Amino acid sequence: MAIRIGIIGYGNLARGVESEIRRCPDMELKGVFTRRDPSSVKIKTEGVPVFSVSDLKDKTADFDIMINCGGSATDLPVTTPEYAALYNVIDSFDTHAKIPEHFKAVDDASKSANKVSIISAGWDPGMFSLQRLYSNCILPEGNDYTFWGKGVSQGHSDAIRRIPGVKNGKQYTIPVPAALDAVRSGSNPELTTRQKHTRECFVVAEEGADKALIEKTIKEMPNYFADYDTTVHFISEEEFAANHSKLNHGGFVFRSGTTGLNGEHKHIIEYSLKLDSNPEFTASVILAYARAAFRLYEKGDYGCKTVFDIAPALLSPLSGDELRAKML
Amino acid sequence: MAIRIGIIGYGNLARGVESEIRRCPDMELKGVFTRRDPSSVKIKTEGVPVFSVSDLKDKTADFDIMINCGGSATDLPVTTPEYAALYNVIDSFDTHAKIPEHFKAVDDASKSANKVSIISAGWDPGMFSLQRLYSNCILPEGNDYTFWGKGVSQGHSDAIRRIPGVKNGKQYTIPVPAALDAVRSGSNPELTTRQKHTRECFVVAEEGADKALIEKTIKEMPNYFADYDTTVHFISEEEFAANHSKLNHGGFVFRSGTTGLNGEHKHIIEYSLKLDSNPEFTASVILAYARAAFRLYEKGDYGCKTVFDIAPALLSPLSGDELRAKML
Repeated sequence: MAIRIGIIGYGNLARGVESEIRRCPDMELKGVFTRRDPSSVKIKTEGVPVFSVSDLKDKTADFDIMINCGGSATDLPVTTPEYAALYNVIDSFDTHAKIPEHFKAVDDASKSANKVSIISAGWDPGMFSLQRLYSNCILPEGNDYTFWGKGVSQGHSDAIRRIPGVKNGKQYTIPVPAALDAVRSGSNPELTTRQKHTRECFVVAEEGADKALIEKTIKEMPNYFADYDTTVHFISEEEFAANHSKLNHGGFVFRSGTTGLNGEHKHIIEYSLKLDSNPEFTASVILAYARAAFRLYEKGDYGCKTVFDIAPALLSPLSGDELRAKML
Repeated sequence: MAIRIGIIGYGNLARGVESEIRRCPDMELKGVFTRRDPSSVKIKTEGVPVFSVSDLKDKTADFDIMINCGGSATDLPVTTPEYAALYNVIDSFDTHAKIPEHFKAVDDASKSANKVSIISAGWDPGMFSLQRLYSNCILPEGNDYTFWGKGVSQGHSDAIRRIPGVKNGKQYTIPVPAALDAVRSGSNPELTTRQKHTRECFVVAEEGADKALIEKTIKEMPNYFADYDTTVHFISEEEFAANHSKLNHGGFVFRSGTTGLNGEHKHIIEYSLKLDSNPEFTASVILAYARAAFRLYEKGDYGCKTVFDIAPALLSPLSGDELRAKML
């Protein structure tokens, strides 16, 4: 019997789950739940029904795992605990500072309902967190470095689009090559915000807008841009559509540590991702953890988990014997 | 109470465990066991006794975890199952093809004794295996690439030293930069053995030895060198001592995969290690897994495990709350 998967939402991440579930022969997409009128949502998988989120309370017998594809800012903190009282739920909650309170709310709901939930599955938090944890455990003496990009930052692109006179905008976060090289050298540099990343913005201005003012507004925006070397390019709508519609991203996690009786030996652990599609990769991570959640549920190991709590073998469709023979 | 650690053997790996345990405040080295006369073995930690391996059967109350630092070829297959009947044991068994049978023997011994064992902890097998597993679960459609080096291959260095006329020898395995670049490009190249690695040998010849014959013997040696582009340098004993006494190593694990409804998006996951000291890094991995083994033992989760079976949080001295707040 395939693991019966439901998707809540139908944005970029949900569409990623829809495409990547086709690469998981042990899973089956059984339905998509939307806040809109279900008849207005056309999905890409034939024969799979679209329901209203108001139907969620009546479908608990039909799904093994629900994947909550809402946004982290306002949606997931409310809906994941709510759905966790009904289903085994996975989300990709990515507001790092609020993970402890989100965990608590979801854990309480899952434990009361004898269900399993996994929060913050994706690549950061997610795969990057795992690399930080493993490498900190292996090299207790050392420094961590995380770089993001080159890739599209949704939050920074939104901030640009809110500026008066801006018709469209996209922001790329770019790690500074010299900073990457310094970390790779093992010199354990102390790097300021400005030394680690640059920001590059592509902006379509409204007809007659004051471009100099838009550029100044972007570059001086606190938190988002003021601490970075930022470049602003004004381009046409056509160029924007042709060259800036992708959702690529990626980044680097380093641990630079020392061993030896006198700390005389250096070690560099480097992990990097180059992703053509941020939402499809995130969806792929979520599906691997959906498999683990289903197994934990079958074992009766209820409550909220994160990537830190899941033994890697639980992510694989292969048996322990197969994994040891093929991948160890 | 600190976790009481014992070391079996006193070669490079054991000395690495001895130095790295100082970075684990929750552990204490309680003894070293040797096959030699214990009075002939001087260790670097004051106040820690050296015992004979024949004392192992009488010391079971004094140690929580034994780290078996024997060699994979002939020692570990015999001794890890033997010690697993007495102690919670960790080893770094690295003969990939024989892992299934080693696992079975150690698992049987550990389960009969209600103990926990972890085999093949290190970086390959170990951290590299974990990267292969995680990235295969996330990107089911794709190719794996593992490269080793630049680093010292003990097995190949030994093979050189067995050639008549060779006084000393060291072999470096070196990944081919063009092959790394091809993999990073996402082109999913098919690479032959020769295209992936080169081998560089530094040889001290006996006085009057036939260097041309030594070089030919190395380059034509089946399995070890014949399938590779191999370079042989003859050097003096002084140069050998000055420049080739290190035990550095490292390597790269890649997963190059695709997502999307038509496989239109490429993703590259790259993990790499640059290690000044192969044995100290391996020891560091082993110690993190010793912590996990102790916790599993306390929970009564007996039997043999590998890195695939261990939830990452078990490796850390931090609590779940701390990990979620600081590293997720």
